Amino acid sequence: MPHIKVNEDLPGIRSLMAFSPETAEPMGVLANLLLRTNEGLTMAERELIATHVSHLNDCFYCQHSHGAIVTCYLHDNNELVDEVIRDPEHASLSDKMKALLAVAGSVQKGGKHVTAEQVERAKQSGASDKDIHDAVLIAAAFCMFNRYVDGLASNTPTDMSSYPLRAQQIADNGYGNHIFTNKQPVADEQHG
Amino acid sequence: MPHIKVNEDLPGIRSLMAFSPETAEPMGVLANLLLRTNEGLTMAERELIATHVSHLNDCFYCQHSHGAIVTCYLHDNNELVDEVIRDPEHASLSDKMKALLAVAGSVQKGGKHVTAEQVERAKQSGASDKDIHDAVLIAAAFCMFNRYVDGLASNTPTDMSSYPLRAQQIADNGYGNHIFTNKQPVADEQHG
Repeated sequence: MPHIKVNEDLPGIRSLMAFSPETAEPMGVLANLLLRTNEGLTMAERELIATHVSHLNDCFYCQHSHGAIVTCYLHDNNELVDEVIRDPEHASLSDKMKALLAVAGSVQKGGKHVTAEQVERAKQSGASDKDIHDAVLIAAAFCMFNRYVDGLASNTPTDMSSYPLRAQQIADNGYGNHIFTNKQPVADEQHG
Repeated sequence: MPHIKVNEDLPGIRSLMAFSPETAEPMGVLANLLLRTNEGLTMAERELIATHVSHLNDCFYCQHSHGAIVTCYLHDNNELVDEVIRDPEHASLSDKMKALLAVAGSVQKGGKHVTAEQVERAKQSGASDKDIHDAVLIAAAFCMFNRYVDGLASNTPTDMSSYPLRAQQIADNGYGNHIFTNKQPVADEQHG
């Protein structure tokens, strides 16, 4: 049960963003900027970092929401997400992505856990300063989103069929503010 | 030394926000919404939560930046910040603030560390749902800001006289985007 009175028909962060639409807006803008661009890292790579960090933070809702978006972008059967959840170093990924996931994993523990060696490895495998910046900020932002979702004990859908449906909407439309509030299409409510 | 090439004349998060002005904007908006209002929690109380979480995350720059803002608002000699850093439960604070700092401390560890008992204690001592929401989101947001600052190893001013000067600017003007980029007044650069 959520710690505060929210619309319990809305899942996870969406119930909190409907509770506080003012703060939802910049959070939606930030999510779009970090996750909805192929500049440097692809959208799938960005979502994979978000999924990895959400898994490390033990945030079921965010891990499955963003994992479903990776799968949606890649048109696979969740294979890559499953590999990364098991062990990023042995996943079917570029050396650059392995290095950036290692950086993101350190950010999840705390900013000072990121080592010069981890950053050097990322650079050696082709990561630009912007790639490193974005990987760190995506990881840091999910340390916020995950804590927001679980710190207020927001409802987590256990019907796993709801995640791919939401993922397709985000793949189609991005993280607009409408995604987070109760202004989304009525059809979607059924899968909330 | 920062992990990526940033303007080293700018301290902490400001160097990163100048590197990435697009993401700086929603982060500045979020900081303003969470920290620059007296609705429910006062601005000093909000900054105190930010300071407490930054201390727990071992983020020197954020702890001292936001601690200086508390001191600026309260016109004291850093006494309250020192007390909270030592032990929030024995600080000169309302029961409500002690309860909310305990919630914030749990959010810092991870969202699932927040207990129903901690939330109940906050409610019993007068915290509204909005107070609890704001305390959780401030704590979560500083888990992002702190990791952004230290995850990229941004420069931390060791000249402690620079913090009260910046604090006064933020007390006067808030967290505008201009605060974070290199568009701030030239006079301020001397204390960067």
